Amino acid sequence: MTIREKFATLGVDNAPGQEENQKNEALELRGEPLAGAPVDFSHGDVDAHKPTPGSFELFAAGVFEGAAQAYTPYKGRTRLMETLAERLSAFTGAAIDPHSGLILTPGTQGALFLAMGANIMPGDKVAVAEPDYFANRKMVEFFNGEMIPVQMRWTAVQTGSGIDLAELEAAFKAGARLFLFSTPNNPTGCVYSKEELFAISKMAKQYGATLIVDELYSRQLFEGTDYVHFCAACPVPNMITIMGPSKTESLSGYRLGVAFGTAEIIERMEKLQAIMALRCPGYNQAVLNGWFAEPAGWLAARVAEHQRIRDDILALIEKQPGVSARKPDGGSYLFVTIPELAVSLHTFIRIARVHANVTVTPGTEFGPQFLHQLRINFSQDHDKALAAMERLFTLMDRYRLP
Amino acid sequence: MTIREKFATLGVDNAPGQEENQKNEALELRGEPLAGAPVDFSHGDVDAHKPTPGSFELFAAGVFEGAAQAYTPYKGRTRLMETLAERLSAFTGAAIDPHSGLILTPGTQGALFLAMGANIMPGDKVAVAEPDYFANRKMVEFFNGEMIPVQMRWTAVQTGSGIDLAELEAAFKAGARLFLFSTPNNPTGCVYSKEELFAISKMAKQYGATLIVDELYSRQLFEGTDYVHFCAACPVPNMITIMGPSKTESLSGYRLGVAFGTAEIIERMEKLQAIMALRCPGYNQAVLNGWFAEPAGWLAARVAEHQRIRDDILALIEKQPGVSARKPDGGSYLFVTIPELAVSLHTFIRIARVHANVTVTPGTEFGPQFLHQLRINFSQDHDKALAAMERLFTLMDRYRLP
Repeated sequence: MTIREKFATLGVDNAPGQEENQKNEALELRGEPLAGAPVDFSHGDVDAHKPTPGSFELFAAGVFEGAAQAYTPYKGRTRLMETLAERLSAFTGAAIDPHSGLILTPGTQGALFLAMGANIMPGDKVAVAEPDYFANRKMVEFFNGEMIPVQMRWTAVQTGSGIDLAELEAAFKAGARLFLFSTPNNPTGCVYSKEELFAISKMAKQYGATLIVDELYSRQLFEGTDYVHFCAACPVPNMITIMGPSKTESLSGYRLGVAFGTAEIIERMEKLQAIMALRCPGYNQAVLNGWFAEPAGWLAARVAEHQRIRDDILALIEKQPGVSARKPDGGSYLFVTIPELAVSLHTFIRIARVHANVTVTPGTEFGPQFLHQLRINFSQDHDKALAAMERLFTLMDRYRLP
Repeated sequence: MTIREKFATLGVDNAPGQEENQKNEALELRGEPLAGAPVDFSHGDVDAHKPTPGSFELFAAGVFEGAAQAYTPYKGRTRLMETLAERLSAFTGAAIDPHSGLILTPGTQGALFLAMGANIMPGDKVAVAEPDYFANRKMVEFFNGEMIPVQMRWTAVQTGSGIDLAELEAAFKAGARLFLFSTPNNPTGCVYSKEELFAISKMAKQYGATLIVDELYSRQLFEGTDYVHFCAACPVPNMITIMGPSKTESLSGYRLGVAFGTAEIIERMEKLQAIMALRCPGYNQAVLNGWFAEPAGWLAARVAEHQRIRDDILALIEKQPGVSARKPDGGSYLFVTIPELAVSLHTFIRIARVHANVTVTPGTEFGPQFLHQLRINFSQDHDKALAAMERLFTLMDRYRLP
């Protein structure tokens, strides 16, 4: 394989936030344009849900402190790591060693990349839940690994993720020694049940597998959700947990992430970070001083706002024939199944952007088989989001097959 | 090879800025401790040479702008890229397309990692100048390539880098199709001569090789230096130039870098950035609005300050028997050759940190053969730096072999 062939599979044109790079193509536009405030469901709107109060002031304090904050060890500033280890231990229930078991990264994307790069050799088989975060499969390809998808049958169950444990075991039997999944899941919002997690843990121990657990959305859990932190409930010898303040806390503009877990893996991640970006930007790290230390009531209010948007969009969805989405247990995503249309999924999505000012992410970013799904990030202004969904459905009606 | 074996070669304990992680070992300390203000020569001191005026205000404006600055395309914010392409074109003399030929990265480390990752397949041979930036060899190893060092005989020449063009040609003949070098060179401060650059260009064309030219220090050039931008003077079809404001401009705490060059390579780098860290942090990008637009006279003053420190340290070095360093043409590094000591280079460096409050980087980070070299970054407070060098030499005298 040449470098060109390798990168040909790593498309980014349909990735969330990249839409402005798409080539113009002739679109068969039906009916009048649907006017309304533009809504970009490809990511959360940090103007509608502002960054955590005090975050900018923490950054400013870091800049004014100067060299000590600009140049930190590659893993992160030592005293900040001590603070974070304590808070993350309290949150998850797992003991986290600030000196050997924790690393700060440029966003959770950085944490995922480091965790994957620190575990995959060329030719390695890697089990990845599907649907799951769009970049997972691309990382496996980039590190010259071989992906074994493990289906999450989320629409077949009421609670839990519906992860196919028989498929997961088959992947381990086929030689996979690394499994990556997110809970709450991106894009469905499903939270893995305790039973699922214990089954995964048992299997990982049996096969000596390493686990990467993406808990990016674990602070944004809706009413009635029973959440279990894998790292505390059923840890395995080789595992990394990933979190960050980019979503619920709206701090994405600072690109902050953390990973914690097995010391030997963290050490490899540190070595990789040293050649990848040296460190999570020094001044930006200072913003993490406010993480898990937000004003009283702030988190509950933020979750409640999102629950309202979720429920109001779901109520709209229920009225559309052939359209469905499972109610998310946590996070800000809805993975919406749509009916057969007269145009392809990708074309419909481009039409929605051009003709209705609505940007969504195609299901195919989460698995090639999701040709009738689209993902929306509902961390938006409530009214604008509802109006945008109405426009999307109006447009959909124009392209429905009879 | 296992993942453990692979990472075992990627040590970071001796890397600049990582010294606090070194294990304590029993050191044979001779004489009394040498008191004085601690000086960390492993990187520049951004308290002594402050970040560019106005940089923090640009960051703040980015935060207050909100979502549009937080979420940019992966390559960087479009209107900022247009501004930067214009300024970088004016600076280098090369035509740079903002839409297809430029990418913003998390630091120049990020730019280097992306450029290497976008060009190396497992087993590929890669030519790397030696001595050169310590992470270069590690990146080749991480991407499962095979490094072919090309010696830079910098002490054998008065001008130019002394790059061994016969060795470079031998590397191309052996199959290398990628060559990476820095000018001004890190760690020696040598600037490649026009003749050297044209010879490299000719050879790269002949063998169809890709070039990565690290020009991180190209704004900090001392009196009498004749600098040629490769990308303008003798471009080749496949090449990437790397720059950033972390050094001369002291903006390292923001982690900003840029790469420009061949559109096809930039596109691969964008795809890799999408899974590595998504983007250069959104708010941080805003700081680049001030790059190449500093107050009149600011750059000249900064270069003059550094030239004075360089010259005063060189005057000290000249008085030490067995100690030497070539006068840097540009940048903030001195690569100092030291005499044979009673302890190893690494042990002497640890002793200097413990017993004299002076941190330096061992030559071995730049090539395994540099057992009698150490690198200092002289972007420091003038007086503290001079005093620290005096302490280093006093300590050296205590360990000299008779």
